Amino acid sequence: MNQPALCPRFEKAVEILSKRWVSFIVFQLLSGPRRFSEIENSLPNISGRLLSERLKELESDGIVNREVYPETPVRIEYSLTEMGLALAPIFGEISKWSSDWIQIPTTNETVEEKA
Amino acid sequence: MNQPALCPRFEKAVEILSKRWVSFIVFQLLSGPRRFSEIENSLPNISGRLLSERLKELESDGIVNREVYPETPVRIEYSLTEMGLALAPIFGEISKWSSDWIQIPTTNETVEEKA
Repeated sequence: MNQPALCPRFEKAVEILSKRWVSFIVFQLLSGPRRFSEIENSLPNISGRLLSERLKELESDGIVNREVYPETPVRIEYSLTEMGLALAPIFGEISKWSSDWIQIPTTNETVEEKA
Repeated sequence: MNQPALCPRFEKAVEILSKRWVSFIVFQLLSGPRRFSEIENSLPNISGRLLSERLKELESDGIVNREVYPETPVRIEYSLTEMGLALAPIFGEISKWSSDWIQIPTTNETVEEKA
């Protein structure tokens, strides 16, 4: 049986997208530019340090743009670049698959299981 | 600015797909049923123990099917379920995005950088 060799580009893309929190950060930015605190608030379990690390990585990967507005106080906004916005179809397909196939137990189902 | 709340189904889908090696295992199985050794050989850096763990998880998630053929020696094949096959569009979009946007430095580029 022929084995599809893994294309290095595909491998790199999966590596980027599979990093913890990256998909959720990109998902938030798909609805428009966000400040650090807005992203942080929308992802309750992420630490500020890790969010900052992920945003720097996404910036160096060319996926996120960091804009500094010289106001008082300074305003910093994160947004998706063209490369970042081009991820939208992937998230569209993930949303579709998840609503077609993923079952989320309703609270009473989980209570019954425990009873 | 309104924050798109993360849908639990979407979160669960991202959680499954982001686990290390899952995307590569599913990608291999998208081209047809495979034996354990075939999957293992196609992913040079994965350990047998971790591959076995991931396949069990994917089986319990309903994404992979494990078929035992009572031959001598016994033959075991892994394949994608309907739920697994429905992941194909996600991987199609990842492949497209990666070929549009990911740059892979050619070997002489990396040599020049080091010189």
